[in-house]
Amino acid sequence: MSEIKLGKKLAEGKTKIVYESQKPDEIILEFKDDITAGDGLKHDIITGKGKINAAISARIFEELNKADIPTHFISFISPVYMIVKKIDMLPVEIVLRNRAYGHFLKRMPFKSGEIFQKPIVEFFYKDDEKHDPMINEDHFELLNLASYEEVLKIKEITHKVNDVLKKFMDNFGIDLIDFKIEMGRTMDGTLIVGDEINGDSCRLWDQMNPQKIYDKDVYRRGESLEFVKKTYVELYEKILGRKYED
Amino acid sequence: MSEIKLGKKLAEGKTKIVYESQKPDEIILEFKDDITAGDGLKHDIITGKGKINAAISARIFEELNKADIPTHFISFISPVYMIVKKIDMLPVEIVLRNRAYGHFLKRMPFKSGEIFQKPIVEFFYKDDEKHDPMINEDHFELLNLASYEEVLKIKEITHKVNDVLKKFMDNFGIDLIDFKIEMGRTMDGTLIVGDEINGDSCRLWDQMNPQKIYDKDVYRRGESLEFVKKTYVELYEKILGRKYED
Repeated sequence: MSEIKLGKKLAEGKTKIVYESQKPDEIILEFKDDITAGDGLKHDIITGKGKINAAISARIFEELNKADIPTHFISFISPVYMIVKKIDMLPVEIVLRNRAYGHFLKRMPFKSGEIFQKPIVEFFYKDDEKHDPMINEDHFELLNLASYEEVLKIKEITHKVNDVLKKFMDNFGIDLIDFKIEMGRTMDGTLIVGDEINGDSCRLWDQMNPQKIYDKDVYRRGESLEFVKKTYVELYEKILGRKYED
Repeated sequence: MSEIKLGKKLAEGKTKIVYESQKPDEIILEFKDDITAGDGLKHDIITGKGKINAAISARIFEELNKADIPTHFISFISPVYMIVKKIDMLPVEIVLRNRAYGHFLKRMPFKSGEIFQKPIVEFFYKDDEKHDPMINEDHFELLNLASYEEVLKIKEITHKVNDVLKKFMDNFGIDLIDFKIEMGRTMDGTLIVGDEINGDSCRLWDQMNPQKIYDKDVYRRGESLEFVKKTYVELYEKILGRKYED
């Protein structure tokens, strides 16, 4: 376990705490053991979940950085910390879908699991009161979030993340159904991938066993916390390639 | 009143009937006296409404044609008929908003009537079962509706319609708040404006009197049918520049 010096607590979300670091352009993320669903209505604590999600996120960000996709990730400090670039987050959830599932099925006339010829990208404005409405390019400008050119850039980066993440998951016999990322601007205005990427933000289905999934849907659909933990541990062990220890 | 020879009835919607004409590439629209709101849940008959909306639509399409915006409009046959080009309609409602109102306020953090610096365009897929979900460029391709380039073209035409319609309404002291149009493809694949444009599909506010409006919202908010008819007649008389007679 490395040494870490946490600065002032800057913010606390549902699953992470943000601290100042020693450097003005870097911050520290702490992954908590909290798990939530349904706009935070469902909420539990699973011991070890923070450790698992921090390690998986770090591993995935390493892959993205290796592929020259700009991300905030600098280093992982075991067990639950990530040192990342300080960025000005866009209040937007960027969703890429390779197949039809979840919320999408309520809105669009597709069959569950239907494979798209080309992945699609959707944007949702993070606004609790309005329940994260879907937005398009025009809304980005209207809400002063990003220019049209920047939205194109965001889409391009999101597709690159998909290419890398899909291939990466394929190594473990896992299909990437969809995922959510968030992006932000560095001090010089560059858009990079921030936040976290793990079983909380991806849908991951076993390629061999259609009943077997490795993501937060096990929690959403009401499985026991033991089963949820087992699922997160399985993903950890596949991706990290080592036994998980509490 | 001109002579009109209606061919086979091809389709009947909430407010219009479609007939074959003498020519294979033209059809005839008949405007009915029906008025509906809330996905058809609210429904009434207002004598003369078809006549009013047909005349207003024809007058507006004339303006658009004059401005070289491609539309389906060929000619108006008093009292309730329009001869139009036969097109393959896109099942999409194309909405342009100059100001925040209606459904938009439920989704987005804006004040009622707030003026946008730049108009925005939104697309809704016409699917009763899914309640006309909002879609983006990627969904157009996914649903096999239109290519990315065609969506750009659709947006461009929609902005042109706004420019012409805004100026046109301004002549009558009316502010164009938002409007809905529909588009379709001619036999050679060109995208043109179809359907109808009138008080049913535009929000029209008096520039002098903030309480005074000239659109279907008077019906939506539950005014008496007499009041609704009076409102439609007022818009007719302003735009056609002559007294309305039943």
